[in-house]
Amino acid sequence: MLGIGDDCAIYRPRAGEDLVFTTDFSIEDVHFRLDSHTAAQVGHNALARGLSDIAAMGASPRFCLLSLAVPQYISKRWLRSFYAGLLQLAHSSETVLAGGDLARGQKLHCDIVVAGALPLGSALRRSGAKPGDAIYVSGTLGGSALGLETGKGAAWKRHLRIEPRVRLGQYLRRTLKATACMDLSDGISLDLQRLCLESKVAALLTGLPVFPGASMEHALHGGEDYELLFTVKSSVKVPDRFEEIPLTQIGEILQSPQGRVLFKGKKLTPKGYDHFRTLQQ
Amino acid sequence: MLGIGDDCAIYRPRAGEDLVFTTDFSIEDVHFRLDSHTAAQVGHNALARGLSDIAAMGASPRFCLLSLAVPQYISKRWLRSFYAGLLQLAHSSETVLAGGDLARGQKLHCDIVVAGALPLGSALRRSGAKPGDAIYVSGTLGGSALGLETGKGAAWKRHLRIEPRVRLGQYLRRTLKATACMDLSDGISLDLQRLCLESKVAALLTGLPVFPGASMEHALHGGEDYELLFTVKSSVKVPDRFEEIPLTQIGEILQSPQGRVLFKGKKLTPKGYDHFRTLQQ
Repeated sequence: MLGIGDDCAIYRPRAGEDLVFTTDFSIEDVHFRLDSHTAAQVGHNALARGLSDIAAMGASPRFCLLSLAVPQYISKRWLRSFYAGLLQLAHSSETVLAGGDLARGQKLHCDIVVAGALPLGSALRRSGAKPGDAIYVSGTLGGSALGLETGKGAAWKRHLRIEPRVRLGQYLRRTLKATACMDLSDGISLDLQRLCLESKVAALLTGLPVFPGASMEHALHGGEDYELLFTVKSSVKVPDRFEEIPLTQIGEILQSPQGRVLFKGKKLTPKGYDHFRTLQQ
Repeated sequence: MLGIGDDCAIYRPRAGEDLVFTTDFSIEDVHFRLDSHTAAQVGHNALARGLSDIAAMGASPRFCLLSLAVPQYISKRWLRSFYAGLLQLAHSSETVLAGGDLARGQKLHCDIVVAGALPLGSALRRSGAKPGDAIYVSGTLGGSALGLETGKGAAWKRHLRIEPRVRLGQYLRRTLKATACMDLSDGISLDLQRLCLESKVAALLTGLPVFPGASMEHALHGGEDYELLFTVKSSVKVPDRFEEIPLTQIGEILQSPQGRVLFKGKKLTPKGYDHFRTLQQ
């Protein structure tokens, strides 16, 4: 109803819809570097991180708000390219940029809020996986971690550009009736444990689709893959691909112990990325 | 419907309501300093900045999302006090903390998103002021700027703690049927010009309620007062106070030239705070 320019943006909800909300930081020297990412890539990825969470709920993006803290050394030209990258993805994903905040800062901080919508009660949560469900993942894993390590080739390109799986998420909700879903941002060893804890189940991991050239370590523990991890009832027929994206069964849900992930007959230790492993007491 | 712990928070809108959204940064050494603000004050003010925008629309706050970038030198104890300050205001304003993001950063960056609700089409915008409307302001102006300058007394306390005018905003919408409203964050000389530009009108400023000890310069151009600036039809009887907060007529809306503010027979030059006056070309 009303976008940038007033104290708040105004949104008129449609009848019969739940709204979902996510917020994601993109911070200079934490999530990106100015000497490796172009301004357009930073803008694209800032929104893509939020859209990946919207995809994980199976929702349709509706609008976003962008907060930007900008240091002195960022030029108007850089900001124009940043907005161009962000707005191109906003346009292609039908996400309206409805407002935000601007301030001075010492390092570039982007915080994106994305709102999505879906039919009442239909959101794909992490908590719905049941014993016997099949576990799937989209795409291949470990590419972003390999790219970060080597700085070259297809893996580097994968690292530099996040592709949110928005249409796949909607397909998982509508057609495959996925029982649980989440996006992979911190490494599947950590993220699958999180899904199991929320669903109060365990998981048997039988294998992973590994990005060409990446190791099993990259695939298990590497962050920023932004693929979808989901579970379906064992009776559901899952196609090999959705719009060119491979869908691969990687295991099945077990009853207990809660939060345990088994891999090659042993307990898998989560080693994914945790921002706060070093938090002071 | 669902708070912290999944990819997104889920909100089920009520029938007959518009939703309003605002996002506001609180950045270390820009909006606050660790050696002058307590952790609880930083937390309180982070949410208060957002609630002030919700108040300016006349809305009722519903939920908030908090993104926090935390440097190494912030302790768990500091964070606990920060959350205590934020959650106390969340509780008293009936705002549910529904999610957010956490990351490492070099300086503390808090970005708060607040969502509010109000009856369809009833939001107080900046754009509704009409020639002949009376202009009012709540409270007194210039206290925060004086406090920042002197670092002592009642003005310093005013500077350290933001009081969002949430109930007043609802009263302006429901009872006084305000024609336009905004909160004062960057100084009334700049903010009143913004309201006039959005409403395509001019304003005659006849006087201001000045914080005890502050100068007219503080009141005109000082930032962070977080009072409400609003207009009503000239026929509306506005009480002297709303719940102890003075309401003072400060002028009236004129037809033209658009965006012009007259004070003491001259054009008032906006000198309020602009984060981007020094933006590079």
